[in-house]
Amino acid sequence: MNAPLPDPDAVADLLERGRSLAAPALRAAVGRLASPMDTVAAYHFGWIDEDGRPADGDGGKAVRPALAVVSAEVAGARPEAGVPGAVAVELVHNFSLLHDDLMDGDEQRRHRDTVWKVHGPAQAILVGDALFALAGEILLAEGGPHAAAAARRLAVAARKLIDGQAQDIGFEHRETVGVAECLEMAGNKTGALIACAASIGAVLGGADEATADALDRYGHHLGLAFQAVDDLLGIWGDSRSTGKQTWSDLRQRKKSLPVVAALAADNPAAQRLTGLLTADAKKSPEEFEDFDEAEFAERAALIEEAGGREWTADEARRQHDTAVAAIEGLTMPDHTREQLLALADFIVVRER
Amino acid sequence: MNAPLPDPDAVADLLERGRSLAAPALRAAVGRLASPMDTVAAYHFGWIDEDGRPADGDGGKAVRPALAVVSAEVAGARPEAGVPGAVAVELVHNFSLLHDDLMDGDEQRRHRDTVWKVHGPAQAILVGDALFALAGEILLAEGGPHAAAAARRLAVAARKLIDGQAQDIGFEHRETVGVAECLEMAGNKTGALIACAASIGAVLGGADEATADALDRYGHHLGLAFQAVDDLLGIWGDSRSTGKQTWSDLRQRKKSLPVVAALAADNPAAQRLTGLLTADAKKSPEEFEDFDEAEFAERAALIEEAGGREWTADEARRQHDTAVAAIEGLTMPDHTREQLLALADFIVVRER
Repeated sequence: MNAPLPDPDAVADLLERGRSLAAPALRAAVGRLASPMDTVAAYHFGWIDEDGRPADGDGGKAVRPALAVVSAEVAGARPEAGVPGAVAVELVHNFSLLHDDLMDGDEQRRHRDTVWKVHGPAQAILVGDALFALAGEILLAEGGPHAAAAARRLAVAARKLIDGQAQDIGFEHRETVGVAECLEMAGNKTGALIACAASIGAVLGGADEATADALDRYGHHLGLAFQAVDDLLGIWGDSRSTGKQTWSDLRQRKKSLPVVAALAADNPAAQRLTGLLTADAKKSPEEFEDFDEAEFAERAALIEEAGGREWTADEARRQHDTAVAAIEGLTMPDHTREQLLALADFIVVRER
Repeated sequence: MNAPLPDPDAVADLLERGRSLAAPALRAAVGRLASPMDTVAAYHFGWIDEDGRPADGDGGKAVRPALAVVSAEVAGARPEAGVPGAVAVELVHNFSLLHDDLMDGDEQRRHRDTVWKVHGPAQAILVGDALFALAGEILLAEGGPHAAAAARRLAVAARKLIDGQAQDIGFEHRETVGVAECLEMAGNKTGALIACAASIGAVLGGADEATADALDRYGHHLGLAFQAVDDLLGIWGDSRSTGKQTWSDLRQRKKSLPVVAALAADNPAAQRLTGLLTADAKKSPEEFEDFDEAEFAERAALIEEAGGREWTADEARRQHDTAVAAIEGLTMPDHTREQLLALADFIVVRER
């Protein structure tokens, strides 16, 4: 990786700026929902707890709003010009979380019970739908003269995101998944919306197509770097910071990048891993529940020994570097470029 | 009702024109979906059967595409100008059917098993999401210079439609529902998207706001007339033509307009009905399943005796007349006005 470690304070400021610019508009948008969807959405965002009492959940790291706001500055616009884009992207992101948690049967998110666990499947579907509809409504109502171009990019990103979720669900039913199709899935499921976040502010700020497309590529590769890091954390992450169980992705038998890369390797560890995971695939969820720590640790060690961990960490850096290269030719103020580079570095090193 | 019976051939031609103009674009849009969502969507639309063999399902009456296409002509544009609007509205309509059938647990639609029954809940959620995303994408990509205004109206309609479904689900858990709130729910759940269909072609064709708003009101009241007729059919309809079980809405204990209006009446039949339905509400779905024809017939007779059937039929006519009045002041070619009036008449008398 070419870049030095980002200044943690500078990144924290950037994330905080995106979050604080977008938050009032996001809360106003959610406040438009009919009861009880407004309450269910407020629970999902962490603004209230299960009993309706105010809570101080932050709704995640807010990388996307930060990108949307910096993106406006690339076009020479004020950061505020990116806000309708930041809000729309956050709404689409959270629509997908609500539906994915239900489809995947995930019971926990951000250290709390998921919406379908607390409020039931119908509310998870309905509130997800409502957030998606709001995204288009807000963007077209408040996005100014370039809102249509922005909304078109958002719709394409949403469709890719859904394609990615469909591919991901499809992988569950398959014995083998290749590294290339795994990256394609992640490009859709994670890359497309981060690409949209990174370009939507510029589009709203009046940037030309070439600039928006370069920012889109930057965001796409950043999204892939993000996913690679996420996949590393899904196996080796500290459950206290990820908010998930230890060995979370192994428990779900997820065909994540480290697993897929390890299985594709040509060495004895890969062969032993293939044997184990092939046997695992035939087990019922209940048998899997009974696995102890040592059994997951054995699988994690084999993935690492086969080279899956190192390949994924390298891939995160490669994607980071491709992202950074995508914006090299763009003209923008120095401090804006520094911000885009700092956000890119943050995404790769966020758990160091 | 002021209008005479519409010429059935003229209405059939109108519906067929809307359907045949929109069908190729709709199939092309659905063809963009990643596998297996394209197959699931094709099943939902009735283009293939459960085993993937071609089928000749017509995907419903296609009132919405017909309206979108006529609506373009109100603006002096060619009917083709309304096609991206027709496709987008159909996609949103079918997104809501996929999700509502799952949320409501409905197992049959158009004489066939619903998508969640055949392909599972995850596919119903995912394909619904994909159709919703496609709607915005198609409209903004192919809608021409006025696409943004059209997309904004579509997003608002989608949000209202979701609000309506939320209200409808909420009614299930309540003992009493008033006539006014029942109409408000129907205005959201059914009126908003028909209002959008009736105005979106004109918006795409370059109509001014006042014209689009008048067409929106026409469609809104037409949607309410449509719902009133649907609610009559839900109790007294012939199951061979509705594609649902006899007494369908009574079996589901739906608080539809005839029921709500009957309960609001001040007469002995209303009191007897209140007693019966209050006792019914405490029964389990299984106890309800065991009801015989005579028990549903008794409830239907009481609803009629209390005046719920007549009130709903009158309400359909009132809404029809309000719809027709909304477009009286608009300037448009005579044959276009005749088409709008014929579609309005068709909606009220469609099951005679």
